[in-house]
Amino acid sequence: MTPDVQLLLKSGAALTDQALERLLPSPDTSPHSIHRAMRHSTFAGGKRLRPILSIEATRMVLGSQKLDAAAAELGAALEMIHTYSLIHDDLPALDNDDLRRGQPTCHVVFGEATAILAGDALQTLAFQTISRLSCPPAATVAILAAVSDAISTGVGADLPGSLPYGMIGGQVMDIESEGVKASAELVERIHRSKTGALITVSVVAGGHLASASEDTITRLRTFGEKAGLAFQIVDDVLDMTQDSAQLGKTAGKDTASDKATWPSIFGIDQSLHDANELIADAFAALEPFGAAAAPLKSLALYLTTRKN
Amino acid sequence: MTPDVQLLLKSGAALTDQALERLLPSPDTSPHSIHRAMRHSTFAGGKRLRPILSIEATRMVLGSQKLDAAAAELGAALEMIHTYSLIHDDLPALDNDDLRRGQPTCHVVFGEATAILAGDALQTLAFQTISRLSCPPAATVAILAAVSDAISTGVGADLPGSLPYGMIGGQVMDIESEGVKASAELVERIHRSKTGALITVSVVAGGHLASASEDTITRLRTFGEKAGLAFQIVDDVLDMTQDSAQLGKTAGKDTASDKATWPSIFGIDQSLHDANELIADAFAALEPFGAAAAPLKSLALYLTTRKN
Repeated sequence: MTPDVQLLLKSGAALTDQALERLLPSPDTSPHSIHRAMRHSTFAGGKRLRPILSIEATRMVLGSQKLDAAAAELGAALEMIHTYSLIHDDLPALDNDDLRRGQPTCHVVFGEATAILAGDALQTLAFQTISRLSCPPAATVAILAAVSDAISTGVGADLPGSLPYGMIGGQVMDIESEGVKASAELVERIHRSKTGALITVSVVAGGHLASASEDTITRLRTFGEKAGLAFQIVDDVLDMTQDSAQLGKTAGKDTASDKATWPSIFGIDQSLHDANELIADAFAALEPFGAAAAPLKSLALYLTTRKN
Repeated sequence: MTPDVQLLLKSGAALTDQALERLLPSPDTSPHSIHRAMRHSTFAGGKRLRPILSIEATRMVLGSQKLDAAAAELGAALEMIHTYSLIHDDLPALDNDDLRRGQPTCHVVFGEATAILAGDALQTLAFQTISRLSCPPAATVAILAAVSDAISTGVGADLPGSLPYGMIGGQVMDIESEGVKASAELVERIHRSKTGALITVSVVAGGHLASASEDTITRLRTFGEKAGLAFQIVDDVLDMTQDSAQLGKTAGKDTASDKATWPSIFGIDQSLHDANELIADAFAALEPFGAAAAPLKSLALYLTTRKN
């Protein structure tokens, strides 16, 4: 990790956290339980990767930081969505996880009913936040369409300008594939849906905020898709090769639950090779932006060389 | 009920159902389970009151049916949100209802995990639908802001143009108030939040779709707030006075669960008197629209004279 990336991560996370602090209802606002639950999970130590990708995409397109306030709010909205998906994923009826990043999960602290509603409310707050972004209405509508498609069941593909994969669709496929021998195609589809779609749309939405051209949006989407898939492949490899202390979460979970992952199908060496190829493709998509693309490129590199 | 209202309800429900049929992913689209779960609950016999209010608000402002295709899609989005809230409300961790409108609830048929995700996906699909409405981007943004506020925890009040009550906030207060002696103020706040906010925003969003003026939006909001509260009061009265066969759902549930309701605090006579006063206020708000307001007025009257 170069010092540059450490700075990018740190300053991007700080910018996002300030926006989240401002946008999330205070823990003293009635009804208290849900607002405390929303904050508990949002401020549980996430790296803010999606907001940082979104903020850097906006900066790259603009060539400046002049939309940083709106970019931070858009980033906060993306993090609210990510948090909502984690809260619901951790529920007893789904993954039944008691711990995340070393902290008790939302339903453990606040009960299942409040956790379900806190997830619901974080999705809603993300759209409230998008509705108030300081940008032209046409940019807001483009962000709304792209983000809502990306977190859908993955059926927006026949709609113009939409993504062919959706986060909830990925979660459903993930649940359905447990204990089943999954094909390489299914593993790729799950990855592109469950984690890839939100990562991709983070980059794309950052571009829309800056009213990017259609060609630029296409390039950002390619970058996001490639980097997002590489990120998930590396995540799977880390789950197999690192111990829980290094990861900050339970290692070896995929193997224990007999989950089909990239390395379980292709092996670790091939997986790391694939991740590197994807990063090369991601870099190529941003070629026309020259030096302005350096932050997004170093983030992509970080995603595939990190150790946790 | 006048023949007029029966026709309004029937034709509005048909228009909404056609839009829902088109917008909801086919049951044969992968991943199947979630798409079937979304359809199971959406097509479980709802009256489509929120879409019909929204469609009639658009027609009243325009003085024509020329936006009917978009109005039906907006109505469908509102019904998706209503359905998502019912699916999550019925979950074992919340109301634990096995039946709704005489049919098994979503988690009974598809399991809890799929029901949670189907609710999530219906909220998302509502926003995907709003993002594609055929109207000026500024109208879409106004609809997005109003709808997302109305289904929030109720904290949008400090934001310009937002509603002070939110659906999820109402659900949380409802859960928290069980077994507690609730004040009249709390019962009113729960009603205005849990059911009132979505009914109100249905009327308001219909106005935004027609690019209504600020004064018209204020009048529509007053109409929706008054009619929505009257609707909930009558709902509480019906729960106390009708049997399950007449209601099509379990009667006496509020009394059995010791839930604070309008008639439990004020008595049945006073409740019906209050509902009538609210309807008079709702009518007054639409005075300037003359005969064009007749459909919305007869819907409001229907809401307070229905027997189930």
